[in-house]
Amino acid sequence: MQRVESEIIRLIEEIGYGEATRLFKTLEGGKRVRAKLILKIASSNERAPLLAAIVELIHAASLLHDDVIDEATTRRGVASVNATSGSKTAVMLGDILYSKAYSELVFFGAEIAKIIANSVTLLSIGEMMDVEMSSEFNSDEDKYLSMLYLKTATLIEACAAAAATLAGKDIASHALYGKNLGLSFQIIDDILDITADAKTLGKPAMNDFREGKCTLPYIYLHNLLSKDEQKKLVSFHAKELNEGESAWILQKMKEHKTIEKSFELAKKLSDEAKEIIKNDTQLVSILEAMIQRSY
Amino acid sequence: MQRVESEIIRLIEEIGYGEATRLFKTLEGGKRVRAKLILKIASSNERAPLLAAIVELIHAASLLHDDVIDEATTRRGVASVNATSGSKTAVMLGDILYSKAYSELVFFGAEIAKIIANSVTLLSIGEMMDVEMSSEFNSDEDKYLSMLYLKTATLIEACAAAAATLAGKDIASHALYGKNLGLSFQIIDDILDITADAKTLGKPAMNDFREGKCTLPYIYLHNLLSKDEQKKLVSFHAKELNEGESAWILQKMKEHKTIEKSFELAKKLSDEAKEIIKNDTQLVSILEAMIQRSY
Repeated sequence: MQRVESEIIRLIEEIGYGEATRLFKTLEGGKRVRAKLILKIASSNERAPLLAAIVELIHAASLLHDDVIDEATTRRGVASVNATSGSKTAVMLGDILYSKAYSELVFFGAEIAKIIANSVTLLSIGEMMDVEMSSEFNSDEDKYLSMLYLKTATLIEACAAAAATLAGKDIASHALYGKNLGLSFQIIDDILDITADAKTLGKPAMNDFREGKCTLPYIYLHNLLSKDEQKKLVSFHAKELNEGESAWILQKMKEHKTIEKSFELAKKLSDEAKEIIKNDTQLVSILEAMIQRSY
Repeated sequence: MQRVESEIIRLIEEIGYGEATRLFKTLEGGKRVRAKLILKIASSNERAPLLAAIVELIHAASLLHDDVIDEATTRRGVASVNATSGSKTAVMLGDILYSKAYSELVFFGAEIAKIIANSVTLLSIGEMMDVEMSSEFNSDEDKYLSMLYLKTATLIEACAAAAATLAGKDIASHALYGKNLGLSFQIIDDILDITADAKTLGKPAMNDFREGKCTLPYIYLHNLLSKDEQKKLVSFHAKELNEGESAWILQKMKEHKTIEKSFELAKKLSDEAKEIIKNDTQLVSILEAMIQRSY
């Protein structure tokens, strides 16, 4: 991973704009899930760290734009660029990172460049759907999972497929592994938004629902409540909740085991992924670590 | 140009997201300067209309983000996407168009893809500089022209270079032609913002200065005024002006011939470009038409 970090810094400095370098360095790198995945799959290829660095620039760009969209004030526990330097700067810094990533991607050949660029189209569509869906309470699980696939899983799927291409491994099975990893990863993130404390999250708990996002535990809950209770839940959507209101939601989720149901789906997707790449112990261990961070 | 328009529609529909298609169709296509330039330079190549369509998607994406940044409510006389659908949607639609463009660009080979992607990095840096520079009165001509080159001329320069690459023509001379065309085009746009009426512009006259942008006629004026007058001009920066204040600026510009001085620079850059490609009558005529639209 050290080579990935130094490639990231090299790419940023190559842009040649001091303000962009300065702002980039204020970002928290995060878990580098995508980079690690590429290194694991294409470990034999000496260009894997560069591909991993490129994808981390793309991921950082998508988060910058995501934070503008969500009007988020923090990201990974530190102030977001849109909060410190304004949303204008955050939009442009994102564009700089995206375009720099594409500039470098061209040297990996048309197949890999196309896989990655296409996933950015899908993730941007996912973001647009997310904005649209947040305007009212969504209780449609399939619709939610389609959006989640686009918004979160497509880039991880693309990383796995691109790394497999680079390493001459089977593309379809690695893509499916990446897709399921991405989906279950995000479902667990959605669960942690409810179960973890604000300090661990780096943001207030139950933030998703406050922002209008009806994640799986809320969707399952809605569909198991009585008509009157459904109305009550919907009335809490996308607003600041007092302690009693939050406690009511949590109590109802406990009664109807909707956190557990959500976790079961994440586990099922993760098990499917494990089955696909069962001979690759490193990829299996990524899934196991991911599932375990939940409880 | 009809083939370019149909390629644009084909690419947009290929994205497969109805909301993106609908929103894209609300955009005004504009003069398609970049597409026309590519068609003129690479007329012999059957893939020129596709390259032209890709570049128009990139240009549209940059305008969507530009309008978010400028908080513009109109673009080319129609309501901007950020005004009708919110800046979140405008940011994401821009990302969708950018990524779709890059997805298609990969089939033109590394050299062309790199030229175009790199110009997007530079134009985004230019946008960031523009935001930064708008916060106070800038009287530095060189600084302004550097920003203008990045923000406006780099993509036109890249179009000319990419089209020359596609057509097997000399890259350096076409790139320089494109750079000077872009710079003089923008200087004339800046002049028209002052001299044309609101109806022609599709936005209020002297809008740039109101937004904090000190274009050449303002920079030249500042540097020719007395100390007291300079203070007065600076006090008008980035705010709504009453009729008397606007009239004072226009009168002073007339006295000091700063519109003419700005036009002289545009003409000089355009003449240089003409000299470079003097044997290509079509490229010469683009320059002439552009210069003539000013007066």
